[in-house]
Amino acid sequence: MSMNIGFVLFPNLTQLDFTGPLQVLHRLPGSAVHILAATRDAVPSDCNLGLVPTHSFAESPQLDLICVPGGGGVLGAMQDQAVLDFVSRQAPGARYVTSVCTGAFVLGRAGLLQNRRATTHWAYTDLLPLVGATYEPARVVRDGHVITAGGVTSGIDFALTLVAEIAGPDVAQSIQLSIEYDPAPPFAAGHPDRAPEAAKRLVAPRFETARANYRKVLEG
Amino acid sequence: MSMNIGFVLFPNLTQLDFTGPLQVLHRLPGSAVHILAATRDAVPSDCNLGLVPTHSFAESPQLDLICVPGGGGVLGAMQDQAVLDFVSRQAPGARYVTSVCTGAFVLGRAGLLQNRRATTHWAYTDLLPLVGATYEPARVVRDGHVITAGGVTSGIDFALTLVAEIAGPDVAQSIQLSIEYDPAPPFAAGHPDRAPEAAKRLVAPRFETARANYRKVLEG
Repeated sequence: MSMNIGFVLFPNLTQLDFTGPLQVLHRLPGSAVHILAATRDAVPSDCNLGLVPTHSFAESPQLDLICVPGGGGVLGAMQDQAVLDFVSRQAPGARYVTSVCTGAFVLGRAGLLQNRRATTHWAYTDLLPLVGATYEPARVVRDGHVITAGGVTSGIDFALTLVAEIAGPDVAQSIQLSIEYDPAPPFAAGHPDRAPEAAKRLVAPRFETARANYRKVLEG
Repeated sequence: MSMNIGFVLFPNLTQLDFTGPLQVLHRLPGSAVHILAATRDAVPSDCNLGLVPTHSFAESPQLDLICVPGGGGVLGAMQDQAVLDFVSRQAPGARYVTSVCTGAFVLGRAGLLQNRRATTHWAYTDLLPLVGATYEPARVVRDGHVITAGGVTSGIDFALTLVAEIAGPDVAQSIQLSIEYDPAPPFAAGHPDRAPEAAKRLVAPRFETARANYRKVLEG
């Protein structure tokens, strides 16, 4: 089995949306990981960290698995014809079309979430109908060959789920063991259903602005 | 409050050891994140991903928090005088001296774990006495200003713990919420105490070789 896996980068992505699943999928036996962007120049992420692509979009082979991460930069990526063209061109030949976090809206703008059940970062789930999708409340949602994950760290759960499907549970469990993914968060605050009000108030302004900007693009 | 946070990169690090805590600590209010390496050239990680430093070691300010990630490249980093000198020079002025995964052995080779309780990736815990440390079985271990985390993904729990200490639980919980860190691993296989035998057998060869190489350097 050989599997071409490709991650789509764009400026100001949330780097953990990408680096979490990258760590897992890179260990999938027989896979070749491609890190793709408009050019081979380092792509600035949200964390002061530049990420170096392995190939430009033009140099990419046909992918078996395409994964679009999310983050603040999705606002630009949703309006970037180079990104949308690449995703649209790759999707019909891919065995899996996937996203993490608000990467779902890049898939959506490329027309790939029409009549699909999907998820995204919790703060943006009500915008999914604007790309023709129905929100399903789960950390990883599968509808046919389209798999979407919730916010940021859900990309790790998503990638392990995918490895189990592709290579079987033994392999997925061995990767989980190798990255000591035995989570012990110091708080139970990772979802609005569980987070204390103080934490919700602190993040509210960040997401209100972002949501309004997303809505403008998606309705525009 | 202003806090200089620095991550120490070296070739062939496990990128998620670094990118997990980076995502969390970058959102600590008043912090400035520095991504440090011998030079400003992109540093190759274990996943085909090049990581671009913000500063060379020589350009780094005095850090308040220094964090050393782990991975296969630790074998080289433990023998790299530029890395060891940088860590040794920064540690006395830092409020927190920290590691994720086998980054503990870089701290150890710089003499910073003598008579400390510490942890590291589960496959390497029995080597901690070779750098003068005592293994404490926990995902995050604190001994004075030295904080060590277990393997790879434990860096996320570690970083949230640190944020809670530095900025309080409300801030830590708001960051946890913003990265939707509400983990739901598809299996309970993230630690040898819980992983099935088949998963353990699959990872054994990888770690046996690495452990033997570490031991050679640490005893040499």
